[in-house]
Amino acid sequence: MQRIVDEIAEQMANVSDKGSVATYIPQLAQVDPNQFAITVALPNGEIYSAGCSQTLFSIQSISKVFTLTLALGKLGEALWARVGREPSGDPFNSIVQLEHENGRPRNPFINAGAIAVADAIMQGHKPKEILAEILRFIRFLANDDAINIDEKVAQSEQETGNRNASLAFFMASFGHFENPVDEVLGTYFHHCSIAMNTVQLAKAGRFLANNGINPDTNCVVVSSKRAKRINSLMLMCGHYDGSGEFAYRVGLPGKSGVGGGILAIAPGEASIAVWSPGLDIIGNSKLGTQALELFTSKTGWSVFSV
Amino acid sequence: MQRIVDEIAEQMANVSDKGSVATYIPQLAQVDPNQFAITVALPNGEIYSAGCSQTLFSIQSISKVFTLTLALGKLGEALWARVGREPSGDPFNSIVQLEHENGRPRNPFINAGAIAVADAIMQGHKPKEILAEILRFIRFLANDDAINIDEKVAQSEQETGNRNASLAFFMASFGHFENPVDEVLGTYFHHCSIAMNTVQLAKAGRFLANNGINPDTNCVVVSSKRAKRINSLMLMCGHYDGSGEFAYRVGLPGKSGVGGGILAIAPGEASIAVWSPGLDIIGNSKLGTQALELFTSKTGWSVFSV
Amino acid sequence: MQRIVDEIAEQMANVSDKGSVATYIPQLAQVDPNQFAITVALPNGEIYSAGCSQTLFSIQSISKVFTLTLALGKLGEALWARVGREPSGDPFNSIVQLEHENGRPRNPFINAGAIAVADAIMQGHKPKEILAEILRFIRFLANDDAINIDEKVAQSEQETGNRNASLAFFMASFGHFENPVDEVLGTYFHHCSIAMNTVQLAKAGRFLANNGINPDTNCVVVSSKRAKRINSLMLMCGHYDGSGEFAYRVGLPGKSGVGGGILAIAPGEASIAVWSPGLDIIGNSKLGTQALELFTSKTGWSVFSV
Amino acid sequence: MQRIVDEIAEQMANVSDKGSVATYIPQLAQVDPNQFAITVALPNGEIYSAGCSQTLFSIQSISKVFTLTLALGKLGEALWARVGREPSGDPFNSIVQLEHENGRPRNPFINAGAIAVADAIMQGHKPKEILAEILRFIRFLANDDAINIDEKVAQSEQETGNRNASLAFFMASFGHFENPVDEVLGTYFHHCSIAMNTVQLAKAGRFLANNGINPDTNCVVVSSKRAKRINSLMLMCGHYDGSGEFAYRVGLPGKSGVGGGILAIAPGEASIAVWSPGLDIIGNSKLGTQALELFTSKTGWSVFSV
Repeated sequence: MQRIVDEIAEQMANVSDKGSVATYIPQLAQVDPNQFAITVALPNGEIYSAGCSQTLFSIQSISKVFTLTLALGKLGEALWARVGREPSGDPFNSIVQLEHENGRPRNPFINAGAIAVADAIMQGHKPKEILAEILRFIRFLANDDAINIDEKVAQSEQETGNRNASLAFFMASFGHFENPVDEVLGTYFHHCSIAMNTVQLAKAGRFLANNGINPDTNCVVVSSKRAKRINSLMLMCGHYDGSGEFAYRVGLPGKSGVGGGILAIAPGEASIAVWSPGLDIIGNSKLGTQALELFTSKTGWSVFSV
Repeated sequence: MQRIVDEIAEQMANVSDKGSVATYIPQLAQVDPNQFAITVALPNGEIYSAGCSQTLFSIQSISKVFTLTLALGKLGEALWARVGREPSGDPFNSIVQLEHENGRPRNPFINAGAIAVADAIMQGHKPKEILAEILRFIRFLANDDAINIDEKVAQSEQETGNRNASLAFFMASFGHFENPVDEVLGTYFHHCSIAMNTVQLAKAGRFLANNGINPDTNCVVVSSKRAKRINSLMLMCGHYDGSGEFAYRVGLPGKSGVGGGILAIAPGEASIAVWSPGLDIIGNSKLGTQALELFTSKTGWSVFSV
Repeated sequence: MQRIVDEIAEQMANVSDKGSVATYIPQLAQVDPNQFAITVALPNGEIYSAGCSQTLFSIQSISKVFTLTLALGKLGEALWARVGREPSGDPFNSIVQLEHENGRPRNPFINAGAIAVADAIMQGHKPKEILAEILRFIRFLANDDAINIDEKVAQSEQETGNRNASLAFFMASFGHFENPVDEVLGTYFHHCSIAMNTVQLAKAGRFLANNGINPDTNCVVVSSKRAKRINSLMLMCGHYDGSGEFAYRVGLPGKSGVGGGILAIAPGEASIAVWSPGLDIIGNSKLGTQALELFTSKTGWSVFSV
Repeated sequence: MQRIVDEIAEQMANVSDKGSVATYIPQLAQVDPNQFAITVALPNGEIYSAGCSQTLFSIQSISKVFTLTLALGKLGEALWARVGREPSGDPFNSIVQLEHENGRPRNPFINAGAIAVADAIMQGHKPKEILAEILRFIRFLANDDAINIDEKVAQSEQETGNRNASLAFFMASFGHFENPVDEVLGTYFHHCSIAMNTVQLAKAGRFLANNGINPDTNCVVVSSKRAKRINSLMLMCGHYDGSGEFAYRVGLPGKSGVGGGILAIAPGEASIAVWSPGLDIIGNSKLGTQALELFTSKTGWSVFSV
């Protein structure tokens, strides 16, 4: 496995077109695109890394996997009254479907859906309290208390978050929000600004590869059934309108973030985190996707074959 | 396994709301909704059935799995210039996306995509020749020469196929068609009218559960990689705008047809065919989906867990 | 003329289905639907009224005619870089077109367009200053210094204005706004909350019926060409997705508001204001439209005939 | 008046960017773009022309004014059950709205709407019979029996009419058609292929400028009310998604065709026909629009001013 990740890191270093760093959040635009990291975390506790796997990056939309898990813990299946679970076929920040479908977002991984999830988990609490809870949860999953929010990124998001504000006010106009719009947005912008490295991220994802159980502690994070369902949502909707492409090329449930990270799950095998800041036109990490495609070719791991 | 399928058939017999038979094709509207069948075909050749598994039904859109396989055989990855591989988020017969995306359908399983695939495999041949080839291929997969087209259904489709004609002429208006529109439509309507029973259908799907190999003959139908990819497309797009729901509840690649059939693939485990003519509002078999959900609960099979 | 307006008021009193009062702004929901007023203001200074023509009502979107006139005065034809001049074919608060057309609203009379106009006229000034200017302008047009903003309605709008906030943030996300979003919204909500009666409104509209000249003072409010063009925009876009219907039935340029008012212009003949709070499903005054249809039948006035 | 049209013809000869000839109908693509004609027909019988006003051109969508008039004669207001009367905000050949609005086109001047009108006037008759009736009607309006269909253009349309076929089959799929789709299309393609010169066209439009009365014969073609309403539809919808622009710049009801012709109506004043084959990006005659803008500046004619 170490040989595999080393080979991938080496190959990625030689790719010339590394994509373009996200520019709409100024703090993210400053990141050096020539970085790559990969970490594979096995259920037995083994960790294999290559590249700059200790470098922190903004996990952005990957945080939606963790807030969704929290929301399902709090509301159970009742969450689905607030948000759907179908692929959207539209860009991550599209508002068209919201209008056609009365303010109910298609799934929890597009921006509108994740904002609705943020509202659902707040339940009258203040952003600070909820963010503390989200952090506690991720630290527990990754077994690492050093994980934190990057306040500069959060600030930068808030200042450039007009599109997300528009999505939030749109949903609020249907009476769907239980908390003040600005507090929901505050929660959303901050959980997107959590900084992690690939080791932390791969470790945090292990419960999804391990039937819902955190292998460090043997704690049941979620039931086996729920782990399965979260994986299903990641596969169907985890890469916005590039989800079909990712399923076709990589064949594993995965969730991307505009910070350039991707968390992929090979059920029963491993949790894999990759990071490279350059994005393709849809907004998913260019090298990250390539690295995962290579990884699944080398390991033969896919949910679609034996 | 026999006990499992028997239990499922028994439970399905007791469900009161069996959905509504498709009415827009007169021949399908005449089918008795109180029918149910399930067949599980294992790679080792074992077959387990319950319900009316010898009754022929119209496979309709399930045929798109087979024409896609043929098209990939003929054109390889070049096929994707003609049709995308993203979930559409729209109903099976929607034309909106075609206008927004210059006549290129989102995926090969919505009607527009399958019509484009029909055009792609014709390559100047007449419908008769192509339909003979499609039939030969399905008979070979199922190892059953009795499989045939139901001419009455084909006739009925053609007479009520204005919406599909609209989709075809729309794509043709972008210069995307290589064959006369009416011949492409003739091919499409006829391959949708192939009649099979669940035993035949489950057997025809085995190559997808078996890394591309037909277990009866050990022939390589498609490469292991291609089998994986077809499964990925079935999972992402096989149930139209209900694909996310099916992945969430059943967790297996599957393709539905408005005749009430569903073909589901548990990679490495089995090919499963269910049939019950009553549909849900999206157009997928109501009991068929419930039966598969029950089946995966009982077997624990899912692509999203160990 | 007095007989005509009396007859119309009488007939309107006998209509049983008076439509439904707008409910999404609480202050408007409290208005008694059994009210009707009509005023015809001739260029020669004559005024003919019937019904409760002294009762103040919230002019709402009719104010957009006055802010558009101001904006054209300040920016001239450069305004059209910010907003289009085509009918939208969509409801007044739709956001779909904004996404398809990069945040540029179709015309200045849908909500998004009027918010963009509000931003355009602010030019760095505070809402208070701009609102004072708008009020001064309308008072000058109507020759009536008693016209004012209804603060309760403005407050009510602000509290329930999530949809408009969504539109504003959406446009701001394209970098189209020169002023802070909340200040633009404040300006918009307040100018929509101006209260007038039909006499004041009909008088304020006379410049559009009189080649741009205020008949009280003989001041040139706008050039004859601009008056013509504002009339053209009112006819094409003044009733949202009911503009074609209004042109067909009434045949005059007109602008409606959800407060139940309509300002209609018969070029060279008169400025006509009607008011009745009950709305049709599109959001235009039900009795107001009927009254204008009757009025044009009786007078023979129409821009489409001799 | 003769001086006005001469000046306009002269100015148009000097315009360098004459737009692009429609290419999707091969026969139209062969027309020399350096042609211009204008004819003004007054109700008193006077005719003023400049440019090549004897050259025949394909009237294309201008024919929709005449088929609409016929349809209103046959069905009266019941026609509006088949087709709406709102501007569409979409291109002439868009299908998106048809899907969102259950196959009912927005107005009779977009392609879908005119095809629906063609179906409405057929009433079981064959294309040949209906086309004879349409021709008789136009000859009567223009008082000119030489007007005919250009069979080459009709043939060319039919061969390249996939998009229109798509629209027709789409509407038919909702059960909205009373006649066979191919016959409706045949009628539509042929009436679009009527060839006229600007003199004939201006004369044919006089009834709309003259309260519904043909000035040659004093026959009532339509009631004054209906003439008014047809003018209203021309203003609102006559230039597709450029209707607002035309109303703003020209200020008269008008109907354009991709052959480069425009018929404009100045109620009570004149019927004006212009022709120049080069089109703008929306598909309306570039020089034709400019000529009409100049014409209304010179004459001061506008429905929006005194």
